[in-house]
Amino acid sequence: MTDETRRRTMLVGGRGYPELTEQVAKHLDVPVTPQSVYDFANGETFVRFEESVRGADVFVVQSVGSRPDKALLETLIMVDSLKRASAGRITVILPFYPYARQDKKHRGREPVTARLVSDLLHTAGAHRLITVDLHADQIQGFFDGPVDHLQAQPLLAAHVQATYGPDDLTVVSPDAGRARLAEKWAGGLGSAPMAFIHKTRDVAVPNHAVANRVVGDVAGRLCVLVDDMIDTAGTVAAAVERLFAAGARDVVVAATHGVLSDPASTRLAGSGVREVIVTNTLEVPDERRFPGLTVLSIAPLIASAIEQIVEDGSVTSLFEG
Amino acid sequence: MTDETRRRTMLVGGRGYPELTEQVAKHLDVPVTPQSVYDFANGETFVRFEESVRGADVFVVQSVGSRPDKALLETLIMVDSLKRASAGRITVILPFYPYARQDKKHRGREPVTARLVSDLLHTAGAHRLITVDLHADQIQGFFDGPVDHLQAQPLLAAHVQATYGPDDLTVVSPDAGRARLAEKWAGGLGSAPMAFIHKTRDVAVPNHAVANRVVGDVAGRLCVLVDDMIDTAGTVAAAVERLFAAGARDVVVAATHGVLSDPASTRLAGSGVREVIVTNTLEVPDERRFPGLTVLSIAPLIASAIEQIVEDGSVTSLFEG
Amino acid sequence: MTDETRRRTMLVGGRGYPELTEQVAKHLDVPVTPQSVYDFANGETFVRFEESVRGADVFVVQSVGSRPDKALLETLIMVDSLKRASAGRITVILPFYPYARQDKKHRGREPVTARLVSDLLHTAGAHRLITVDLHADQIQGFFDGPVDHLQAQPLLAAHVQATYGPDDLTVVSPDAGRARLAEKWAGGLGSAPMAFIHKTRDVAVPNHAVANRVVGDVAGRLCVLVDDMIDTAGTVAAAVERLFAAGARDVVVAATHGVLSDPASTRLAGSGVREVIVTNTLEVPDERRFPGLTVLSIAPLIASAIEQIVEDGSVTSLFEG
Amino acid sequence: MTDETRRRTMLVGGRGYPELTEQVAKHLDVPVTPQSVYDFANGETFVRFEESVRGADVFVVQSVGSRPDKALLETLIMVDSLKRASAGRITVILPFYPYARQDKKHRGREPVTARLVSDLLHTAGAHRLITVDLHADQIQGFFDGPVDHLQAQPLLAAHVQATYGPDDLTVVSPDAGRARLAEKWAGGLGSAPMAFIHKTRDVAVPNHAVANRVVGDVAGRLCVLVDDMIDTAGTVAAAVERLFAAGARDVVVAATHGVLSDPASTRLAGSGVREVIVTNTLEVPDERRFPGLTVLSIAPLIASAIEQIVEDGSVTSLFEG
Amino acid sequence: MTDETRRRTMLVGGRGYPELTEQVAKHLDVPVTPQSVYDFANGETFVRFEESVRGADVFVVQSVGSRPDKALLETLIMVDSLKRASAGRITVILPFYPYARQDKKHRGREPVTARLVSDLLHTAGAHRLITVDLHADQIQGFFDGPVDHLQAQPLLAAHVQATYGPDDLTVVSPDAGRARLAEKWAGGLGSAPMAFIHKTRDVAVPNHAVANRVVGDVAGRLCVLVDDMIDTAGTVAAAVERLFAAGARDVVVAATHGVLSDPASTRLAGSGVREVIVTNTLEVPDERRFPGLTVLSIAPLIASAIEQIVEDGSVTSLFEG
Amino acid sequence: MTDETRRRTMLVGGRGYPELTEQVAKHLDVPVTPQSVYDFANGETFVRFEESVRGADVFVVQSVGSRPDKALLETLIMVDSLKRASAGRITVILPFYPYARQDKKHRGREPVTARLVSDLLHTAGAHRLITVDLHADQIQGFFDGPVDHLQAQPLLAAHVQATYGPDDLTVVSPDAGRARLAEKWAGGLGSAPMAFIHKTRDVAVPNHAVANRVVGDVAGRLCVLVDDMIDTAGTVAAAVERLFAAGARDVVVAATHGVLSDPASTRLAGSGVREVIVTNTLEVPDERRFPGLTVLSIAPLIASAIEQIVEDGSVTSLFEG
Repeated sequence: MTDETRRRTMLVGGRGYPELTEQVAKHLDVPVTPQSVYDFANGETFVRFEESVRGADVFVVQSVGSRPDKALLETLIMVDSLKRASAGRITVILPFYPYARQDKKHRGREPVTARLVSDLLHTAGAHRLITVDLHADQIQGFFDGPVDHLQAQPLLAAHVQATYGPDDLTVVSPDAGRARLAEKWAGGLGSAPMAFIHKTRDVAVPNHAVANRVVGDVAGRLCVLVDDMIDTAGTVAAAVERLFAAGARDVVVAATHGVLSDPASTRLAGSGVREVIVTNTLEVPDERRFPGLTVLSIAPLIASAIEQIVEDGSVTSLFEG
Repeated sequence: MTDETRRRTMLVGGRGYPELTEQVAKHLDVPVTPQSVYDFANGETFVRFEESVRGADVFVVQSVGSRPDKALLETLIMVDSLKRASAGRITVILPFYPYARQDKKHRGREPVTARLVSDLLHTAGAHRLITVDLHADQIQGFFDGPVDHLQAQPLLAAHVQATYGPDDLTVVSPDAGRARLAEKWAGGLGSAPMAFIHKTRDVAVPNHAVANRVVGDVAGRLCVLVDDMIDTAGTVAAAVERLFAAGARDVVVAATHGVLSDPASTRLAGSGVREVIVTNTLEVPDERRFPGLTVLSIAPLIASAIEQIVEDGSVTSLFEG
Repeated sequence: MTDETRRRTMLVGGRGYPELTEQVAKHLDVPVTPQSVYDFANGETFVRFEESVRGADVFVVQSVGSRPDKALLETLIMVDSLKRASAGRITVILPFYPYARQDKKHRGREPVTARLVSDLLHTAGAHRLITVDLHADQIQGFFDGPVDHLQAQPLLAAHVQATYGPDDLTVVSPDAGRARLAEKWAGGLGSAPMAFIHKTRDVAVPNHAVANRVVGDVAGRLCVLVDDMIDTAGTVAAAVERLFAAGARDVVVAATHGVLSDPASTRLAGSGVREVIVTNTLEVPDERRFPGLTVLSIAPLIASAIEQIVEDGSVTSLFEG
Repeated sequence: MTDETRRRTMLVGGRGYPELTEQVAKHLDVPVTPQSVYDFANGETFVRFEESVRGADVFVVQSVGSRPDKALLETLIMVDSLKRASAGRITVILPFYPYARQDKKHRGREPVTARLVSDLLHTAGAHRLITVDLHADQIQGFFDGPVDHLQAQPLLAAHVQATYGPDDLTVVSPDAGRARLAEKWAGGLGSAPMAFIHKTRDVAVPNHAVANRVVGDVAGRLCVLVDDMIDTAGTVAAAVERLFAAGARDVVVAATHGVLSDPASTRLAGSGVREVIVTNTLEVPDERRFPGLTVLSIAPLIASAIEQIVEDGSVTSLFEG
Repeated sequence: MTDETRRRTMLVGGRGYPELTEQVAKHLDVPVTPQSVYDFANGETFVRFEESVRGADVFVVQSVGSRPDKALLETLIMVDSLKRASAGRITVILPFYPYARQDKKHRGREPVTARLVSDLLHTAGAHRLITVDLHADQIQGFFDGPVDHLQAQPLLAAHVQATYGPDDLTVVSPDAGRARLAEKWAGGLGSAPMAFIHKTRDVAVPNHAVANRVVGDVAGRLCVLVDDMIDTAGTVAAAVERLFAAGARDVVVAATHGVLSDPASTRLAGSGVREVIVTNTLEVPDERRFPGLTVLSIAPLIASAIEQIVEDGSVTSLFEG
Repeated sequence: MTDETRRRTMLVGGRGYPELTEQVAKHLDVPVTPQSVYDFANGETFVRFEESVRGADVFVVQSVGSRPDKALLETLIMVDSLKRASAGRITVILPFYPYARQDKKHRGREPVTARLVSDLLHTAGAHRLITVDLHADQIQGFFDGPVDHLQAQPLLAAHVQATYGPDDLTVVSPDAGRARLAEKWAGGLGSAPMAFIHKTRDVAVPNHAVANRVVGDVAGRLCVLVDDMIDTAGTVAAAVERLFAAGARDVVVAATHGVLSDPASTRLAGSGVREVIVTNTLEVPDERRFPGLTVLSIAPLIASAIEQIVEDGSVTSLFEG
């Protein structure tokens, strides 16, 4: 970055996960712009920036945690402040895109909240979005403007490869919907074989009894179970169980977003998996950490993206050869 | 309402204060439309309506409480669901308009969150708004569509008049900003005299020392201290103290919105006021109630407004002769 | 439909596939509104409606064929005419949503044309969209308004079940991306087992050599290979070959949209499959038909959806119990 | 300003009050861009800029006078010309915001014209607004973009303080609605005491008889009667009369906007006030001037704001310490 | 109209030309909705409707006269009031479309005010537009919604035909730009011959000397000089002079819009024309009338259009066979 | 252009007429940005830019030919790609504006496709438009943003003047609608005299028989027949015939846009005209060329306009003295 570019670049952070903003700031060598942000007694959020943002190229880092609605509204309020204070351009960075799973109506009369989120950001005044490993790639089309969709999978895959080497790996999708993601992983891990868990009803038993089947060969192999996020770990834990039942030698779990809502940590800690690897697109507080959990930092990737953007470079080049 | 009108009118309620929705429904003799609404493990809100809303004239009642951001986002998600399910017209009823106090930049680089709230509702798909006693009347101009601005003050004033009679009343504004509201009250209470508390710095003492002065005559009189809302009751409690110090015979507090954030109840209970009167535009949970607190129901007023709207009548006529 | 409803309902059709519009009209017992639509000498499209559409509830049926851009623009021009002629409500019916595969940036600097299509329709004046079996469900979120997403899969599945019975079926996805669709089919076919084709590079051979693997058991079974569309049939034909190589007893192909671009028909006719089943969301001209091709009519489904819509009923109920 | 900045900055002025534009230009040392602007025979306004504005940072100064609608439309037409001529950024400067008093529906079926004005400016192509002392601060929220809300009160207060010294002052609000403004003034004048005029009906006399009461102590004091604007001076003149009747030693009137519609000058000249102080946010033509009227220039404040803006500085710092 | 339709139809009128609104009302047998509309002392317009307009199908008639900007803004304010009062649909009727001549940039850095007018109406909340004989037909494309473009030419032509019979007529365009209009007239008058005035510079005389030429045969004929509007009548009077010089037997002038700005009446009265025929799309006050001026009423045409609209009939059928 | 400006300026071209883009690039000395653009098997268009466009000032050249819908959609898709790839500013250059003739409803229930085209471009993300000699100047008002409307007529006129000299010329409009254009030409050619063809029905013969008349003197003169475009040349060929029948010595045809749809070339080649002059705003393929056809290059004009734009100069100065 030139000095002039650095002068125009401002980094502001929501209360969701301030340490991540600090990490990004350190990588960029740009200070976090000071602001007042707090709750009023009745829970309403207040924001004020302590320095002029007029004409600046502002990046708003917000990592939503266990209170996604509050974090989202805080982001919108920050963007509104920046817009009204004549910021030159406002880029919102949501390493974990909230409501990504509600990206369609699963049944009638449901919302498409992931689209709503994009529209709300646009209405507040966001010009551009940066996010990491969306639950569905199509979500980038929800925002009416440029979206830089970063990919953490190479980061995770590099860790797997360095730790476990190339041999005997089978990449496993925990359900049919993630098979395409698993295929990508398999390609990244030297064309490893794949398997997936077929969720099905056991026709022999009436009602809701489910008999998940492993499709593909896993016996005697190190299974890398991949997903974009781990929330309560229900699906993942069930998959792990099925894999061991099907003769897997060992299981490693890798996912970009460690949501880790209760009782994820307990489930995973007790599942027999060798390692669970996530990034810190979301804060992983101490009480949710457990032996075998590895948290990789996403900050360098975000910092690189910002750098490319302010220098009018190519973000695509961060992933593609 | 004709049967045809009743058939087309649907009432849905947020989780903020379901009892209010039920009260309105009862007054209207229209059922609350069943819906699934719950939180996912990571705190994201899910909504689904259980009946077709296609073509319906839907009223969404949402009373935000101690988690205004969550309630607001829930409202937006409900509206998005309704829009995508082809509801004919969507009217959002926010008896207490969230973020009404952030209706302007008090200083530089602040948001105008009250405007943002209107824009978010519009973006989600709300066609019309109903609200009660806005912190500033100008907020109705923030929404790009019809706003029916109901007034609870006649309801409160009728209670005061019935309880204390016309004599010896002085209407008091707790600060300069509410003087116009107090003037309205004074007019409604038979041209009662007015006073207000002048917040000022004591020039004799450096820095922040504040010496509030009572402007107007209150000695020996029953003071009706009025405001649009009571949040932590800091301003109100200070005003009560000043009024008694200035010789007030008794003090009654009346406000439309009983936010009653901590430590409002404690402060008011110990302030020596004879009665505190609010409406239930916000839920007043038991733990915030105290002796001397009167809560009037806003439901009949809201139900009347809906009735006028679905019959293309005049909402204005609910307040004006 | 009541007479009044029928009077207000108008059906207009693009030149893409007029027979489908006629079929829908017949099912609805509503005439197709006469219009002039032709090309000027330089290829520009002209449209004029021959009857007043003022206040009407208009449904525009357009099935894009081999010239999707021309068909799409024709649709936009029809919608513009209707808007400017004061149509009451305009619903566009695209049984095959054009550009559905460009629903995300596969690599940098690509368009999201599927979103663009939705925005263009919205800009022209479309209030609502009806479509069938989107390539990705998320596309419904691209349109800023109600989308009725019809599902032809039950129709196709019923045909398969009636023809081949429940036994020995394995549902196969031709690639990882369609595994979720195959899972749905498997559920619909009595919890049949699943398999899928894993596209991978053969690491033994440098560069682009591909060695697709069948994941799952198909030997001796009747494979139902499912997809949302068959375009050039390259992927499908390769999958068929792999399945037979893996010992499949027989293969049946089922897909909603029979795009059948060259050389699809040749490929499929020579692939050894027993039957290829599609619907007529797109016209299948005679020269693309071949022995073993079954084309089911989508018209009854579309007509039912229109009926539900004009009567403010539930479209969801057409698929869900 | 750097030369490059000065080259990009263009100042254009409406016909409302060209001298103000000239004053601002002189302070900025930037020429007023030449333009043709005149009325056609039927009263329609014509505008053409005589120099290229492509890419420029254009400031449009318009001070509406006695024909606010014509001045407003002229502003919109100027902005449209600039937009279509590829101006880089368009900032409209309305020192007096027209229709500021119609900032809410006072009764049913009224417009919110102040919001409409903002929307019209936005539609024409204005990116940003600069204005002075809005009738209500909330109006800044009506514009969907940055609003720099300048404050002339410090300018007025400095004049009062320099002329009359700190002693014996009482700040008076002419009605309840301006009490908050008076409180601000009182703070700025060394925590001076306050009073206000309570408009009320005399209950002893039926119908409309009004008996305004002075609330607060004014006897023997120099009253500084403050308002945001003086239009016909009816309220102010009545207040002056009440203040003298209540024993005021002397009265000085201060307001930002000297609208001075007939018969304001006559009323004020005959009211016995010692001085009336306004700024020239609106032109005060000779025939409306009278002895005791002081008009301070707002041009330096506007010029400073422009300077801050083009240099991406802080406008807030012009008012706040 | 059915009673139900009549009940829902409301007619409101601006101050531009109330008699026209009354005439339309009489034709429709619908009362003009009472309203308060007046100017504040400083020239700002105030509007309030005295009856509920909720859900109504409102038609706003505004005929701009000599103060087009004021009339336009009044229209916008009326529309804003109606929108905020929940009117069901708002149709603006501008018999004379203001700023129609500024429908393009004649030179660089000019506005396209005719487009701006459409956008302002849309922003204020107008759903639909009715207007008469636009200066250019393309202006109907400026409004983003339905425009019913009425044609008064048949009305004028019928008067000419009834008065002067078919023989010896030549239709003359006063300049090249109106030749197409003249051709339409010629067709309507039994394929009468045409001529037009060619505005040209006389090359023999340097600079601006203009020598207009009559192109076509007019000697001994009754010339019907046609235009869409007569403003100052400069072009028309010059054309009349040229026609007589070229041997015309007599001249009749016909135009839809009688703007008649000074000195039109003097010019026309002294030009020797036999008759000047206009409609009352604009008020023609007594002081602008002169012997030989015929003013036809446009009210029946407007009333018929409204009738067709509220009954969802065809407005086109009013002009076309 | 400075080096910095050149670095930021990018030129991309559609498939409509790549040679024109190349010509413009050569004049500008800026390379055409490489891209992948091709059709999928089913006719859908795919676009990807091969270099980063982030922050660039991009000019998209698209000359629609015989498949205007496909070319238009390709343009929209290119713009969408650029927008989503964070291009700084996107200017679309359509030398021939498609659907310019559908710039109004000629009869009821027609579209205004020329407006639709502008709206579609705006929706896709175009900030600005450059076009040449619009069919109607008003079309520039259809786009909500800057339009640089270039004029090729001086180019054509210079060729005519250089070839035929000033004497004995009569400028002829082929119909009444082009008379204003002919007047402009006449002015540009030394105040040459004018004539035009009056399309009329022969009243002696019933039904559709047409008897076009030449209005103005053409006998013994060299007629320059002018139009904005030549499509099938039906009108032009008929005009030529009439001119020779009326004694014209010779006829030259000049038009900006050589659409030349079948059977234009045959018609013109056999019409006896001496020369037909067009520009290459549209590609003129070899099979449409014929003896006597002259094609002038529009590239220098477009390149000059781009140069002015990127340097914030005046495009107007390209035409006006």
